[in-house]
Amino acid sequence: VSGATETGFNARLDRAIAATGSLLCVGLDPHPGRFEGSVLDFCRRVIDATAGAAVSFKPNSAFFEAAGTDGLAALAAVIAHVPDDRLVILDAKRGDIGSTAEAYARAAFDVLGADALTVSPYLGGDAVAPFLARPDRGAFVLCHTSNPGARDFQSLETGGRPLYLAVAHAAATWNGAGNVGLVVGATYPDALAAVRDLAPELPFLVPGIGAQGGDLAAALAAGLDARGRGMVINSSREIIFAADPAEAARAVRDAINDARARGVT
Amino acid sequence: VSGATETGFNARLDRAIAATGSLLCVGLDPHPGRFEGSVLDFCRRVIDATAGAAVSFKPNSAFFEAAGTDGLAALAAVIAHVPDDRLVILDAKRGDIGSTAEAYARAAFDVLGADALTVSPYLGGDAVAPFLARPDRGAFVLCHTSNPGARDFQSLETGGRPLYLAVAHAAATWNGAGNVGLVVGATYPDALAAVRDLAPELPFLVPGIGAQGGDLAAALAAGLDARGRGMVINSSREIIFAADPAEAARAVRDAINDARARGVT
Repeated sequence: VSGATETGFNARLDRAIAATGSLLCVGLDPHPGRFEGSVLDFCRRVIDATAGAAVSFKPNSAFFEAAGTDGLAALAAVIAHVPDDRLVILDAKRGDIGSTAEAYARAAFDVLGADALTVSPYLGGDAVAPFLARPDRGAFVLCHTSNPGARDFQSLETGGRPLYLAVAHAAATWNGAGNVGLVVGATYPDALAAVRDLAPELPFLVPGIGAQGGDLAAALAAGLDARGRGMVINSSREIIFAADPAEAARAVRDAINDARARGVT
Repeated sequence: VSGATETGFNARLDRAIAATGSLLCVGLDPHPGRFEGSVLDFCRRVIDATAGAAVSFKPNSAFFEAAGTDGLAALAAVIAHVPDDRLVILDAKRGDIGSTAEAYARAAFDVLGADALTVSPYLGGDAVAPFLARPDRGAFVLCHTSNPGARDFQSLETGGRPLYLAVAHAAATWNGAGNVGLVVGATYPDALAAVRDLAPELPFLVPGIGAQGGDLAAALAAGLDARGRGMVINSSREIIFAADPAEAARAVRDAINDARARGVT
């Protein structure tokens, strides 16, 4: 393990997983009309209730952007409210070239204070590089997403392997600073296993359990790294809109850990 | 031409091209440190100076996001300042699924008031569909971008054709409401020609002339539709940071029209 890797985002995430004993990422998707009070108050309550069971939070930029400048101010305040020993993965799926990507990185990491960001690979390596310039901040590259449309392009065969594996392979080569991860949905466990084979070192951000129907045990069996870590499992609606978000978060964390324990032994 | 097509964004764009006699899109990329005064004042001055020569404006969301809540307020004011008969294409390269994409669409079209948005195809058709729900608002799908990294994935062979042509083919099937366009960079004229063959009806948003080195005449020869229209050619830095933006915009418009005239005859 190199010095750069020790200080990189992926090492921070790994230490946070060890310290919290949790792979749970709580997705902050404040759908309008599904909560009482302000977006900021709602998200603060969720964070306070669930931080004990989570290793990270994933605010979904879209719902804040849809609330205009007030929403953006709330997003910054929500991120600031997350305890320092929990990591914030801003789900914004940004991707652009050169100075534009640098501006998106400043917006996510410097203005909003996120620890990591989701990014799109479509524009290629030179469009992802600006998001990797701060080793302690991470970029989760979209690889195989959890939606039905993931098959439209991500599964196309490209030189003997599907596009999503070409993306996974490239992403592994971008990981010099130890701050590249991949987004791989729980709804396609075979894809998770194939990506893990190709990228044994990269952490996965895994959406798609719960409402989207992904099988938690199958996803963990397919995606855990050699040490039984290397994944953060996102859950949004089932936790944040639960009658008792604290209890819901503990239940998902425990279900993950039960499946991990079965898988590792 | 169906009724839906008449009222769709692409028909609006076509009418605006005919009315203004211009294919020029002025890219509003307010790089920090490259202008005097506030972002809003700078962009207003550029719009006032160049609207006479342009059919559309393309604010680059990244530079506004990097300025925080003030930047987002400025972006809304910049869009509101564009004359009603010029179209605003918000360059944000959004892409996500279901309710999240709907929230991005609300942010772009309802909160900010853009006429069209750039979107990423990586997540597939179900992730693009929410951006097409308002027929009078358009989505330009990233197809073949202007950067060197465009070759990393977009050019991979997928079943006998490169990925970007698979995207172009799919995008043409999404155009039922007449509001789908494609982003195709000027730096790859062969790609432009191949996309035009496959998507004869779709308008192209074309970045990459000027600083990025794309050849204007070659791009127009490759990308114009059968009527000598169907493209908006973006220019950013060469116009907005020129000593005289009005003169610079007229010069680019005229260079485009000279090349169109040569190409059509």
